[in-house]
Amino acid sequence: MTSETGQRRVGLWLVGGRGAISTCVVYGLSALRRGALEPIGLATETEPMRGLDLPGFDELVLGGHDVCSRDFSKSAGELVSMGILDGDLVVASADEASAYEANLRSGPLDGPDVGMADLDPRSAELGGAPPRDQIAQLVADWQAFEEDQGLERTVVVLLSSTEAAREHQAEWDDLEHLEAALDEGREQPASLLYAYAALSTGRPFVNFTPNLGSSSDALRWLADDRGVPHAGQDGKTGETLVKTVLAPMFAARALKVLAWQGYNMLGNRDGEVLHDPAHRQAKLRNKDEVLRELLGPGERHTQVSIDYVPSLADWKTAWDFIHFEGFLGARMSLQFTWQGSDSALAAPLVIDLARLAAFAARAGEGGVMDHTACYFKAPLGGGTHDFHHQHLRLLEYAARHLKT
Amino acid sequence: MTSETGQRRVGLWLVGGRGAISTCVVYGLSALRRGALEPIGLATETEPMRGLDLPGFDELVLGGHDVCSRDFSKSAGELVSMGILDGDLVVASADEASAYEANLRSGPLDGPDVGMADLDPRSAELGGAPPRDQIAQLVADWQAFEEDQGLERTVVVLLSSTEAAREHQAEWDDLEHLEAALDEGREQPASLLYAYAALSTGRPFVNFTPNLGSSSDALRWLADDRGVPHAGQDGKTGETLVKTVLAPMFAARALKVLAWQGYNMLGNRDGEVLHDPAHRQAKLRNKDEVLRELLGPGERHTQVSIDYVPSLADWKTAWDFIHFEGFLGARMSLQFTWQGSDSALAAPLVIDLARLAAFAARAGEGGVMDHTACYFKAPLGGGTHDFHHQHLRLLEYAARHLKT
Amino acid sequence: MTSETGQRRVGLWLVGGRGAISTCVVYGLSALRRGALEPIGLATETEPMRGLDLPGFDELVLGGHDVCSRDFSKSAGELVSMGILDGDLVVASADEASAYEANLRSGPLDGPDVGMADLDPRSAELGGAPPRDQIAQLVADWQAFEEDQGLERTVVVLLSSTEAAREHQAEWDDLEHLEAALDEGREQPASLLYAYAALSTGRPFVNFTPNLGSSSDALRWLADDRGVPHAGQDGKTGETLVKTVLAPMFAARALKVLAWQGYNMLGNRDGEVLHDPAHRQAKLRNKDEVLRELLGPGERHTQVSIDYVPSLADWKTAWDFIHFEGFLGARMSLQFTWQGSDSALAAPLVIDLARLAAFAARAGEGGVMDHTACYFKAPLGGGTHDFHHQHLRLLEYAARHLKT
Amino acid sequence: MTSETGQRRVGLWLVGGRGAISTCVVYGLSALRRGALEPIGLATETEPMRGLDLPGFDELVLGGHDVCSRDFSKSAGELVSMGILDGDLVVASADEASAYEANLRSGPLDGPDVGMADLDPRSAELGGAPPRDQIAQLVADWQAFEEDQGLERTVVVLLSSTEAAREHQAEWDDLEHLEAALDEGREQPASLLYAYAALSTGRPFVNFTPNLGSSSDALRWLADDRGVPHAGQDGKTGETLVKTVLAPMFAARALKVLAWQGYNMLGNRDGEVLHDPAHRQAKLRNKDEVLRELLGPGERHTQVSIDYVPSLADWKTAWDFIHFEGFLGARMSLQFTWQGSDSALAAPLVIDLARLAAFAARAGEGGVMDHTACYFKAPLGGGTHDFHHQHLRLLEYAARHLKT
Repeated sequence: MTSETGQRRVGLWLVGGRGAISTCVVYGLSALRRGALEPIGLATETEPMRGLDLPGFDELVLGGHDVCSRDFSKSAGELVSMGILDGDLVVASADEASAYEANLRSGPLDGPDVGMADLDPRSAELGGAPPRDQIAQLVADWQAFEEDQGLERTVVVLLSSTEAAREHQAEWDDLEHLEAALDEGREQPASLLYAYAALSTGRPFVNFTPNLGSSSDALRWLADDRGVPHAGQDGKTGETLVKTVLAPMFAARALKVLAWQGYNMLGNRDGEVLHDPAHRQAKLRNKDEVLRELLGPGERHTQVSIDYVPSLADWKTAWDFIHFEGFLGARMSLQFTWQGSDSALAAPLVIDLARLAAFAARAGEGGVMDHTACYFKAPLGGGTHDFHHQHLRLLEYAARHLKT
Repeated sequence: MTSETGQRRVGLWLVGGRGAISTCVVYGLSALRRGALEPIGLATETEPMRGLDLPGFDELVLGGHDVCSRDFSKSAGELVSMGILDGDLVVASADEASAYEANLRSGPLDGPDVGMADLDPRSAELGGAPPRDQIAQLVADWQAFEEDQGLERTVVVLLSSTEAAREHQAEWDDLEHLEAALDEGREQPASLLYAYAALSTGRPFVNFTPNLGSSSDALRWLADDRGVPHAGQDGKTGETLVKTVLAPMFAARALKVLAWQGYNMLGNRDGEVLHDPAHRQAKLRNKDEVLRELLGPGERHTQVSIDYVPSLADWKTAWDFIHFEGFLGARMSLQFTWQGSDSALAAPLVIDLARLAAFAARAGEGGVMDHTACYFKAPLGGGTHDFHHQHLRLLEYAARHLKT
Repeated sequence: MTSETGQRRVGLWLVGGRGAISTCVVYGLSALRRGALEPIGLATETEPMRGLDLPGFDELVLGGHDVCSRDFSKSAGELVSMGILDGDLVVASADEASAYEANLRSGPLDGPDVGMADLDPRSAELGGAPPRDQIAQLVADWQAFEEDQGLERTVVVLLSSTEAAREHQAEWDDLEHLEAALDEGREQPASLLYAYAALSTGRPFVNFTPNLGSSSDALRWLADDRGVPHAGQDGKTGETLVKTVLAPMFAARALKVLAWQGYNMLGNRDGEVLHDPAHRQAKLRNKDEVLRELLGPGERHTQVSIDYVPSLADWKTAWDFIHFEGFLGARMSLQFTWQGSDSALAAPLVIDLARLAAFAARAGEGGVMDHTACYFKAPLGGGTHDFHHQHLRLLEYAARHLKT
Repeated sequence: MTSETGQRRVGLWLVGGRGAISTCVVYGLSALRRGALEPIGLATETEPMRGLDLPGFDELVLGGHDVCSRDFSKSAGELVSMGILDGDLVVASADEASAYEANLRSGPLDGPDVGMADLDPRSAELGGAPPRDQIAQLVADWQAFEEDQGLERTVVVLLSSTEAAREHQAEWDDLEHLEAALDEGREQPASLLYAYAALSTGRPFVNFTPNLGSSSDALRWLADDRGVPHAGQDGKTGETLVKTVLAPMFAARALKVLAWQGYNMLGNRDGEVLHDPAHRQAKLRNKDEVLRELLGPGERHTQVSIDYVPSLADWKTAWDFIHFEGFLGARMSLQFTWQGSDSALAAPLVIDLARLAAFAARAGEGGVMDHTACYFKAPLGGGTHDFHHQHLRLLEYAARHLKT
């Protein structure tokens, strides 16, 4: 995976750059560059994807936006105390972490979010500015980053907290109406402004959150029109991943699922935000809808909940109970408990997606990156939620693009 | 799925005909014919398989061999008391059950098995006869059955208990040597004799057990030579099914499985037989090998055990613990508990396989039925254990053969 | 446990007499009398309680009130189909069940409950009558039952569905005020009317539900004043039982519980009623308070929820996750899954309590039966929720009263 | 808990002093002395035990024997990487750890154990010496330690790996015969030599392992005769603790346990040793016998297994499945998963026991410390395994001895 020096540097811009996932991305990439870490969790380091001409670990340059002002090393310290980041690794990557922190900028606060403890006042101010001004600021930050670092292009990845649910706005359905709304200064979700800013200026955009991002018709049209690749939404990291692997098994065996109850617990900042019902809504919808598609029509009881359990911190713990009927009406059950670090699960997917988005952009591909459906709870391109089918599409994409 | 009356009757011959799986097949088919049961668990009743010209439920005629003499209604009573069979359904199917019992014959006892409580003395005697005589008796039983019932053909399905493990015999590698060994009267596993008797006389053969059956090179050659379809081995009903669905997920996500411990408990006759280490060996080998193939090379600790817990009866309960490493070395786990009725899970697969075998025979297909790999822990045709890949092969087979 | 014929017949009056628990009591007692059932689940059949001169199984005569009109045999049929009641047992007890059904009367509907499908119109009417009239009707029903059956006394056991939560009323704090409120015709919870009717007429009262019953100061005063034994409230059958056994272990070992999450699922009529937040409130409060008492002061996160999962029917399934800290700050966890039939767990406790209440009444004991705390989630007598401490009190009571 | 300076220093001698439990004791005590750690897991820091005049954390002086030579800091590093010890705490306690390591001596290797990688050659040599010589060496080491450190007395705690199972020897039944056997130079388990050396010289002895230690009649006699307190055997830290809390619940509720399957997995040095069936035997016996006592007579299936899963390291993971029958024959289940650090669970119990043993010795109490039964899987004093009953005995002991 050699590269011509200098010309291949790609920016990976993390929105939510002081959060736990970003912290894992920053330290993880640093350790990968040093060869101090196995590339576990990175599908792009397995066959056939590793045969693609993806940006190398040393070709990715990191920067980001955030709305809080807390020290980046504090995020790292918390992950060390949770047993996720290794203390020695943090020490060894201190210089790279400092370089990254120098590339962090204040991002616009989403309108409804106001109560955060360590809120960056410039973010609050920016969030209150007219949307066109916010967009201009984002683009200016990226341009400065690219010039400073001598980058070929920047991939923007949305990793911010779940935004409060909003009513659907008619202007999201049509690019012309959206442009008009922006001109009129109508307030928009921060995630939409990021997506607009990126796609309208030719920067690939990945929405790893359940936020609106580029999922509206207006933004899809924009991406298609400008020929910019984008992907999303809502990273499939844990319980939902297992769900989309198990549910097709029941369908394939013609077993009748009577009930599927999913209980999620987590204690990180994401959990704190999701504690608020307004923020939880979008997340739960994505988690529950996969079952409807995978198990087909029929009467059954499904439920999914997320509870905030502070002591678990980043260690997402989920229990699913599946009640099903077999031949002769016999009632059976499968239950599973998933215990994983949400951030350590998400970080390699972010790196995978950034590499794939950069690859697609370089290959001149625009619009929804259908082959990344396996990374998302609610893939923009639609289609089945069956993980294995989705994964086959990624394998096929890689096979088609293998360099010759 | 109409049929020309009389000409389409297909025999489904159950070896182990007094056991729990056969009992579920007999009562289940009876209820399906009456329309008193949903076809849950039958993949052949879902699209696209249901579009194939498979034998209908009312076209399957049941008979079987067994080595024990206990009353068939006793088997049914036990399943009722376990909450698997419905009491009313048993009463409503009493006549069909009697008709079936009239079609049961004494099968040869496998040499090493001698201690059974309700052993049929004719089975012991037959098991001690020269192998050619045993084969002749089996064929004679089938011919009489076919003539009595006016059958188009008979599919033989092996559902007997796990045989004691044996050293590999050189004669199994080559049909000529096997024929010679049979001529010389060298003792053979009962499962091999059933397979030989069926395949050599053109009868499709399905091995749902971990026993040798038709899996040796000699028997495969025989099936290819005579153009008879066969399938096996070791039905994938429960814990292993879940394993072959979950393991590919870890591989696809490049997560590193450190340990996979599987603890199985069951209390039915199968559990009793498996309590004996000599019988357990083959079963455990099949259950463990799937992980090796699915997770690829690498150091990891896998273990699978089966314990006999009488109170569970047919309710197989399994706990699997998967310890894995994610990005940054974070240690995570997934554990699941499976609670299912082994017989109610197996019975619809038996019906599926019998229908598919009859279909293949009618279509003139001989040799290993590769498209049935998803039904087995150790598919004769080899290939991946990835359930979803296996299932795609079944779907593709069905799509190719859809009647026009 | 011989008895002088005729003089020792004791009435066991089941409020909620057509429900699942009552059904289990009726058929279970019938089978116990015939010697067709092991006395599993009955602590009164173990030492030292079995040494007490308790009413024998053949001395208990059953009757009851309910607000629905559905056939009693329908309740039995449902329990058979759930695998809880044995079909043969139901047939063998048919005469006793009919005799019981003849003793069922229409009880008053609790005011806020109006929407039930099979509501007995006489119950709705009675529930709308002035409270003094309702009480008079209950007493009249009991008197007629006692005369018809030649009973020594009647123990009233409340097994009705959870009532909608109500604001605390000042009149409940004082008997005089309550009497005045009744005179004025102020509406009261049905459970309070049952308790008042029983205690004011010298009939022992057991509240197995989370409903108000005899738990107010006014009613306690009444019971003390009349010297009538009463017990309650909210039977400790499953998940809470396990909680009150495990929590003291953490306290005794000085382990620091950080979080205790309890997720309950059930699908019976009780589950349906609890689906309504107004009804769920009282139940959840009792389930959660035990942890506060057992684990002592300190910051921790506890949560308990009940979800209605229809397919589970009477099979209550609960998952508890306990996150705790050990020495050196190490984070550990214990999780358990409980799968039990709620009604089959409750029924023997009802029989135990009825026998103990009859024994206490005969012994001239009045007021709260402190020794029965181990049977309840919110024992009327207060004290620790530690099950083993509570159980020791029962053992000590029995030892004190052993017949000489 | 003030003390007269100098006169109250008590030695805590750890046999297995380089192992994981000892490492947790050493760093934990150091942090407790600095006030840098909450006393979680220490029952002696809760009421009423904390009212006893126990040796304070700053009064305990640590030393020990081991048969391996690996660096103590290596043990600490392993526990840090497992997420059990905190890296900062290790740094802060470095001086105390060095002081401790200076007090470590070579102990005798148990005869049958020969294959260890980092075996201390002096241990092998000492283990081959005549038993009287081994005893003399142990006593000499303790005397030197006490003189150097100015100690009031030394409590010897056995934390060594599980010894290979041995045939019962007649000489263990009688002190006179044991003395003769020692005189004759007949080989003895190392654990017995430690117990003999301690008890014969007036040093309290605690056996935290399943090894023979002081459990034979000969050694009990010795302890009684010399008036020396001793306690054991086999620390009750995890799965068995939960068992002895849950099993009495089933008995108290008269529920019929049909099967209790316990599967333990661990990957530390203890797990490695237990991987060998000869070493596993004693451990499993203790784990299984508790159920027999607690559940009473009756036919049931119980099983307990321990598997070595290297990746789990010190994180003992256990799954127990309890199948039980309730009223009316309904079959129910309870299953639990325990995930805890074995060493972090054991260390505070070791500190508790050392403090209690020093207290008993100072109070002039000799023989088995019956009040410590709650700490052991196989308490020397016998009695019930019911944890809550055992714990009440500790509370009563403390209440009796509260200083006035």
